[in-house]
Amino acid sequence: MTSNSASESTASTPNNTDWLDEVRWNSDGLVPAIAQDCDSGKILMMAWMDKTALLATSEQGRAIYYSRSRQRLWPKGESSGNVQNVKSIKLDCDADVIVLDIEQIGGIACHTGRESCFYRELVDGTWETKAPVLKDPKEMYS
Amino acid sequence: MTSNSASESTASTPNNTDWLDEVRWNSDGLVPAIAQDCDSGKILMMAWMDKTALLATSEQGRAIYYSRSRQRLWPKGESSGNVQNVKSIKLDCDADVIVLDIEQIGGIACHTGRESCFYRELVDGTWETKAPVLKDPKEMYS
Repeated sequence: MTSNSASESTASTPNNTDWLDEVRWNSDGLVPAIAQDCDSGKILMMAWMDKTALLATSEQGRAIYYSRSRQRLWPKGESSGNVQNVKSIKLDCDADVIVLDIEQIGGIACHTGRESCFYRELVDGTWETKAPVLKDPKEMYS
Repeated sequence: MTSNSASESTASTPNNTDWLDEVRWNSDGLVPAIAQDCDSGKILMMAWMDKTALLATSEQGRAIYYSRSRQRLWPKGESSGNVQNVKSIKLDCDADVIVLDIEQIGGIACHTGRESCFYRELVDGTWETKAPVLKDPKEMYS
Protein backbone atom coordinates (compact mmCIF):
# COMPACT_ATOMS: atom_id res chain seq x y z
CA MET A 1 0.00 0.00 0.00
CA THR A 2 1.10 3.52 -0.67
CA SER A 3 1.70 5.40 2.49
CA ASN A 4 0.40 8.93 2.84
CA SER A 5 1.13 9.20 6.51
CA ALA A 6 2.55 12.71 6.10
CA SER A 7 -0.74 14.21 4.92
CA GLU A 8 -2.70 12.07 7.38
CA SER A 9 -0.51 13.32 10.14
CA THR A 10 -1.16 16.91 9.12
CA ALA A 11 -4.90 16.30 8.93
CA SER A 12 -5.12 14.84 12.40
CA THR A 13 -2.87 17.30 14.16
CA PRO A 14 -4.83 18.88 17.03
CA ASN A 15 -3.48 22.29 16.05
CA ASN A 16 -4.91 22.05 12.55
CA THR A 17 -7.72 24.59 12.50
CA ASP A 18 -8.81 24.29 8.87
CA TRP A 19 -12.25 23.31 10.20
CA LEU A 20 -12.62 26.84 11.57
CA ASP A 21 -12.20 28.24 8.06
CA GLU A 22 -15.03 26.05 6.79
CA VAL A 23 -17.44 28.05 8.94
CA ARG A 24 -19.07 30.91 7.06
CA TRP A 25 -18.55 33.78 9.48
CA ASN A 26 -20.84 36.77 8.97
CA SER A 27 -19.59 40.27 8.12
CA ASP A 28 -18.87 40.84 11.84
CA GLY A 29 -16.86 37.61 12.01
CA LEU A 30 -19.56 35.86 14.05
CA VAL A 31 -21.74 32.78 13.83
CA PRO A 32 -24.92 31.99 15.84
CA ALA A 33 -24.52 29.12 18.31
CA ILE A 34 -27.58 27.32 19.68
CA ALA A 35 -27.20 25.49 23.00
CA GLN A 36 -29.37 22.42 23.41
CA ASP A 37 -29.65 20.39 26.62
CA CYS A 38 -28.14 16.95 25.95
CA ASP A 39 -30.62 15.22 28.28
CA SER A 40 -33.96 16.98 27.80
CA GLY A 41 -33.41 18.21 24.23
CA LYS A 42 -34.62 21.67 25.29
CA ILE A 43 -33.20 24.64 23.45
CA LEU A 44 -31.66 26.70 26.22
CA MET A 45 -30.24 29.75 24.47
CA MET A 46 -28.69 31.18 21.34
CA ALA A 47 -25.62 33.36 21.46
CA TRP A 48 -22.79 34.27 19.10
CA MET A 49 -19.24 33.05 18.62
CA ASP A 50 -16.23 34.46 16.87
CA LYS A 51 -13.38 32.26 15.68
CA THR A 52 -11.53 32.52 18.97
CA ALA A 53 -14.65 31.58 20.94
CA LEU A 54 -15.38 28.51 18.82
CA LEU A 55 -11.78 27.33 18.97
CA ALA A 56 -11.69 27.81 22.75
CA THR A 57 -15.01 25.97 23.10
CA SER A 58 -13.67 23.01 21.14
CA GLU A 59 -10.41 22.94 23.10
CA GLN A 60 -11.85 23.43 26.59
CA GLY A 61 -15.09 21.47 26.20
CA ARG A 62 -17.01 24.38 27.73
CA ALA A 63 -19.17 26.89 25.92
CA ILE A 64 -17.40 30.17 25.33
CA TYR A 65 -19.39 32.77 23.43
CA TYR A 66 -18.60 36.23 22.13
CA SER A 67 -20.61 38.94 23.86
CA ARG A 68 -21.67 41.53 21.29
CA SER A 69 -22.69 44.01 23.99
CA ARG A 70 -19.45 43.71 25.95
CA GLN A 71 -17.37 43.06 22.82
CA ARG A 72 -15.27 40.36 24.43
CA LEU A 73 -15.16 36.61 24.99
CA TRP A 74 -17.88 35.40 27.31
CA PRO A 75 -17.12 32.10 29.05
CA LYS A 76 -20.66 30.99 29.88
CA GLY A 77 -21.11 30.78 33.64
CA GLU A 78 -18.10 32.95 34.50
CA SER A 79 -20.21 34.94 36.98
CA SER A 80 -23.10 32.59 37.77
CA GLY A 81 -21.17 29.33 37.84
CA ASN A 82 -23.70 27.91 35.39
CA VAL A 83 -21.14 26.66 32.91
CA GLN A 84 -22.04 24.51 29.92
CA ASN A 85 -20.08 21.32 29.30
CA VAL A 86 -20.01 20.67 25.57
CA LYS A 87 -20.76 17.13 24.35
CA SER A 88 -20.75 17.84 20.63
CA ILE A 89 -20.44 20.69 18.15
CA LYS A 90 -22.55 20.52 14.99
CA LEU A 91 -22.55 22.65 11.84
CA ASP A 92 -25.42 23.16 9.42
CA CYS A 93 -25.58 22.65 5.65
CA ASP A 94 -24.79 26.30 4.91
CA ALA A 95 -21.95 26.26 7.48
CA ASP A 96 -23.28 29.40 9.11
CA VAL A 97 -25.01 28.10 12.26
CA ILE A 98 -23.61 25.99 15.15
CA VAL A 99 -25.49 23.68 17.52
CA LEU A 100 -23.88 22.79 20.83
CA ASP A 101 -25.09 19.72 22.66
CA ILE A 102 -24.44 20.69 26.27
CA GLU A 103 -24.78 19.69 29.89
CA GLN A 104 -26.09 22.73 31.76
CA ILE A 105 -24.46 22.93 35.18
CA GLY A 106 -26.90 24.32 37.74
CA GLY A 107 -29.86 23.67 35.43
CA ILE A 108 -30.14 27.35 34.57
CA ALA A 109 -29.07 28.88 31.26
CA CYS A 110 -30.95 32.18 31.39
CA HIS A 111 -29.81 35.32 33.18
CA THR A 112 -33.39 35.70 34.47
CA GLY A 113 -32.86 32.54 36.57
CA ARG A 114 -34.89 30.29 34.28
CA GLU A 115 -33.84 26.97 32.77
CA SER A 116 -34.14 28.27 29.20
CA CYS A 117 -34.07 31.72 27.63
CA PHE A 118 -37.11 30.72 25.54
CA TYR A 119 -39.66 31.06 28.33
CA ARG A 120 -42.19 33.20 26.48
CA GLU A 121 -44.75 31.82 24.07
CA LEU A 122 -47.10 33.60 21.69
CA VAL A 123 -50.66 33.02 22.91
CA ASP A 124 -53.57 35.01 21.45
CA GLY A 125 -51.35 37.84 20.34
CA THR A 126 -49.38 38.13 23.59
CA TRP A 127 -46.01 36.83 24.70
CA GLU A 128 -46.96 34.77 27.77
CA THR A 129 -44.33 33.74 30.32
CA LYS A 130 -44.48 29.96 30.54
CA ALA A 131 -41.56 28.93 32.76
CA PRO A 132 -40.76 29.75 36.37
CA VAL A 133 -37.75 31.56 37.79
CA LEU A 134 -35.72 28.83 39.50
CA LYS A 135 -33.24 31.12 41.21
CA ASP A 136 -33.22 34.84 41.98
CA PRO A 137 -30.78 36.54 39.58
CA LYS A 138 -29.53 38.62 42.52
CA GLU A 139 -28.28 35.39 44.08
CA MET A 140 -26.81 34.19 40.79
CA TYR A 141 -24.68 37.26 40.20
CA SER A 142 -23.79 38.30 43.74
CA MET B 1 -66.30 44.30 39.66
CA THR B 2 -65.04 47.08 37.49
CA SER B 3 -65.27 46.23 33.84
CA ASN B 4 -62.37 47.00 31.56
CA SER B 5 -63.74 45.11 28.61
CA ALA B 6 -62.79 47.88 26.20
CA SER B 7 -59.06 47.50 26.80
CA GLU B 8 -59.38 43.72 27.03
CA SER B 9 -61.14 43.72 23.71
CA THR B 10 -58.33 45.72 22.16
CA ALA B 11 -55.69 43.41 23.63
CA SER B 12 -57.30 40.28 22.27
CA THR B 13 -58.16 41.54 18.81
CA PRO B 14 -56.51 39.20 16.28
CA ASN B 15 -55.33 42.18 14.27
CA ASN B 16 -53.43 43.62 17.22
CA THR B 17 -49.79 43.16 16.30
CA ASP B 18 -48.11 44.91 19.24
CA TRP B 19 -46.40 41.59 19.97
CA LEU B 20 -44.45 41.98 16.72
CA ASP B 21 -43.01 45.26 17.98
CA GLU B 22 -41.74 43.56 21.12
CA VAL B 23 -39.32 41.57 18.97
CA ARG B 24 -35.89 43.17 18.70
CA TRP B 25 -35.31 43.06 14.96
CA ASN B 26 -31.70 43.42 13.86
CA SER B 27 -30.43 46.27 11.67
CA ASP B 28 -31.68 44.38 8.60
CA GLY B 29 -35.14 43.98 10.14
CA LEU B 30 -34.60 40.25 10.74
CA VAL B 31 -34.63 37.80 13.61
CA PRO B 32 -33.18 34.25 13.69
CA ALA B 33 -35.81 31.49 13.90
CA ILE B 34 -34.86 28.01 15.07
CA ALA B 35 -37.11 25.13 14.00
CA GLN B 36 -37.31 22.25 16.47
CA ASP B 37 -39.15 18.98 15.78
CA CYS B 38 -42.09 18.77 18.19
CA ASP B 39 -41.80 14.98 18.51
CA SER B 40 -38.09 14.18 18.53
CA GLY B 41 -36.84 17.50 19.91
CA LYS B 42 -34.21 17.59 17.16
CA ILE B 43 -33.10 20.99 15.95
CA LEU B 44 -33.86 20.87 12.24
CA MET B 45 -32.72 24.24 10.91
CA MET B 46 -32.23 27.91 11.59
CA ALA B 47 -33.40 30.56 9.17
CA TRP B 48 -34.41 34.21 9.34
CA MET B 49 -37.72 36.04 9.54
CA ASP B 50 -38.75 39.60 8.90
CA LYS B 51 -41.89 41.10 10.43
CA THR B 52 -44.07 39.99 7.54
CA ALA B 53 -42.75 36.42 7.74
CA LEU B 54 -43.35 36.11 11.48
CA LEU B 55 -46.84 37.55 11.20
CA ALA B 56 -47.68 35.21 8.32
CA THR B 57 -46.27 32.26 10.27
CA SER B 58 -48.48 33.07 13.25
CA GLU B 59 -51.55 33.55 11.08
CA GLN B 60 -51.13 30.54 8.81
CA GLY B 61 -49.64 28.09 11.32
CA ARG B 62 -46.93 27.21 8.82
CA ALA B 63 -43.30 28.33 8.90
CA ILE B 64 -42.63 31.19 6.52
CA TYR B 65 -39.08 32.51 6.55
CA TYR B 66 -37.34 35.38 4.82
CA SER B 67 -34.73 34.23 2.33
CA ARG B 68 -31.74 36.55 2.55
CA SER B 69 -30.23 35.18 -0.69
CA ARG B 70 -33.46 35.55 -2.67
CA GLN B 71 -34.58 38.62 -0.71
CA ARG B 72 -38.18 37.52 -0.49
CA LEU B 73 -40.58 35.55 1.70
CA TRP B 74 -39.80 31.84 1.73
CA PRO B 75 -42.76 29.63 2.64
CA LYS B 76 -40.89 26.54 3.83
CA GLY B 77 -41.72 23.59 1.57
CA GLU B 78 -43.01 25.69 -1.33
CA SER B 79 -40.93 23.63 -3.78
CA SER B 80 -40.27 20.39 -1.89
CA GLY B 81 -43.66 20.02 -0.22
CA ASN B 82 -41.83 19.63 3.09
CA VAL B 83 -43.86 22.27 4.91
CA GLN B 84 -43.56 22.88 8.66
CA ASN B 85 -46.73 23.01 10.74
CA VAL B 86 -46.13 25.34 13.65
CA LYS B 87 -47.23 24.19 17.11
CA SER B 88 -45.81 27.09 19.10
CA ILE B 89 -43.74 30.25 18.72
CA LYS B 90 -41.34 31.14 21.53
CA LEU B 91 -39.25 34.24 22.16
CA ASP B 92 -36.09 34.49 24.23
CA CYS B 93 -35.23 36.78 27.13
CA ASP B 94 -33.54 39.36 24.89
CA ALA B 95 -36.46 39.20 22.44
CA ASP B 96 -34.08 38.69 19.53
CA VAL B 97 -34.36 34.95 18.80
CA ILE B 98 -37.44 32.83 17.93
CA VAL B 99 -37.96 29.09 18.46
CA LEU B 100 -40.63 27.34 16.42
CA ASP B 101 -41.98 24.03 17.64
CA ILE B 102 -42.88 22.34 14.38
CA GLU B 103 -44.20 19.19 12.75
CA GLN B 104 -41.95 18.49 9.77
CA ILE B 105 -44.03 17.16 6.90
CA GLY B 106 -42.06 14.60 4.88
CA GLY B 107 -39.53 14.20 7.69
CA ILE B 108 -36.96 16.26 5.78
CA ALA B 109 -36.00 19.84 6.68
CA CYS B 110 -32.69 20.12 4.81
CA HIS B 111 -32.27 20.92 1.13
CA THR B 112 -29.64 18.15 0.99
CA GLY B 113 -32.43 15.61 1.63
CA ARG B 114 -31.53 15.04 5.26
CA GLU B 115 -33.82 15.22 8.29
CA SER B 116 -31.87 18.09 9.85
CA CYS B 117 -29.51 20.73 8.49
CA PHE B 118 -27.16 19.98 11.41
CA TYR B 119 -25.77 16.74 10.04
CA ARG B 120 -22.07 17.53 10.49
CA GLU B 121 -20.23 17.12 13.75
CA LEU B 122 -16.75 18.19 14.76
CA VAL B 123 -14.66 15.04 15.32
CA ASP B 124 -10.88 15.25 15.73
CA GLY B 125 -10.67 18.55 13.90
CA THR B 126 -12.90 17.57 10.98
CA TRP B 127 -16.58 18.16 10.21
CA GLU B 128 -17.86 14.60 9.83
CA THR B 129 -21.17 13.88 8.13
CA LYS B 130 -23.29 11.97 10.63
CA ALA B 131 -26.73 11.67 9.06
CA PRO B 132 -27.88 9.99 5.85
CA VAL B 133 -29.56 11.52 2.82
CA LEU B 134 -33.16 10.31 3.00
CA LYS B 135 -34.23 11.57 -0.40
CA ASP B 136 -32.31 12.67 -3.48
CA PRO B 137 -32.57 16.46 -3.72
CA LYS B 138 -33.16 16.07 -7.48
CA GLU B 139 -36.40 14.31 -6.64
CA MET B 140 -37.31 16.90 -4.01
CA TYR B 141 -37.05 19.89 -6.31
CA SER B 142 -38.08 18.41 -9.65
